Amino acid sequence: MLHIRKATGDDAANIVELIRQLADYEREADAVKITIEDVIAHGFGPTPFFECLIAEWEGALAGFALYFFNYSTWEGAPGLYLEDLFVSPEYRGRGIGKSLMIRLAGVARDRGCTRFQWQVLDWNKSAIEFYESIGAFHLKEWYTYRMESDAIGRLARQSADQ
Amino acid sequence: MLHIRKATGDDAANIVELIRQLADYEREADAVKITIEDVIAHGFGPTPFFECLIAEWEGALAGFALYFFNYSTWEGAPGLYLEDLFVSPEYRGRGIGKSLMIRLAGVARDRGCTRFQWQVLDWNKSAIEFYESIGAFHLKEWYTYRMESDAIGRLARQSADQ
Repeated sequence: MLHIRKATGDDAANIVELIRQLADYEREADAVKITIEDVIAHGFGPTPFFECLIAEWEGALAGFALYFFNYSTWEGAPGLYLEDLFVSPEYRGRGIGKSLMIRLAGVARDRGCTRFQWQVLDWNKSAIEFYESIGAFHLKEWYTYRMESDAIGRLARQSADQ
Repeated sequence: MLHIRKATGDDAANIVELIRQLADYEREADAVKITIEDVIAHGFGPTPFFECLIAEWEGALAGFALYFFNYSTWEGAPGLYLEDLFVSPEYRGRGIGKSLMIRLAGVARDRGCTRFQWQVLDWNKSAIEFYESIGAFHLKEWYTYRMESDAIGRLARQSADQ
């Protein structure tokens, strides 16, 4: 029934399709700029930026988990960071999301990661409940800050003034 | 006066020292487990988990920035993630933190990153004010969730039941 496997370059179109479905669920469909070429170049080249698991149900594409490794300077160890976890609406209620999380926990353990981390939208109560049920906790006191391309460019240009 | 350079394996002891100073500032000195050996193995081996900039003032160790690359599936591009930014108390007020941020923005731009991101403790008002002054914004709607070693192990072991 359920088969979870490591993605290959041949999955690039499937990965883009699932990213689009996820962005649509997050009410941000217009935000997706990634192309099949990006997925191949960034995920399946000599120094990939990410790894990906594909979930199939009776051979049909059902979901995915896209992740990479970060680093904790307190732990002195890598961590697994889950960027995207998604199960298509028609395949929900079969434990596929939990099976993907179990596989990811195995990857984290096998690669010496002492932390497994991700972000969730504040309104996604069912996801939050699920995450807490498997032993995750909310890092309430850490605020995430982001700078986007325009601000990055403006700040980088100040180096000439120094 | 100020000199910012890429760290090498010879800086491992300096990096551990600065991580300890930072953890002390964050009121979590006991949380630091990283060793000089960890820094060499994880930062300066064939496939490093992080990169690091060292700030020197008149040749003396003054601060550091430790970072790595993540990946945005919406952007289809890598991002720069700043894990640690720290200037020793005796070297503050000289623009060293801002100079490190300018250098990091240059790294982000040169490596094709469309996002530059980090986390800050909610009580660190002066840092938050500084980050907002250089064009960063708080990602309020994204909650960070974490699972630590014990929970990772418990979840990973469930694979045997499937």
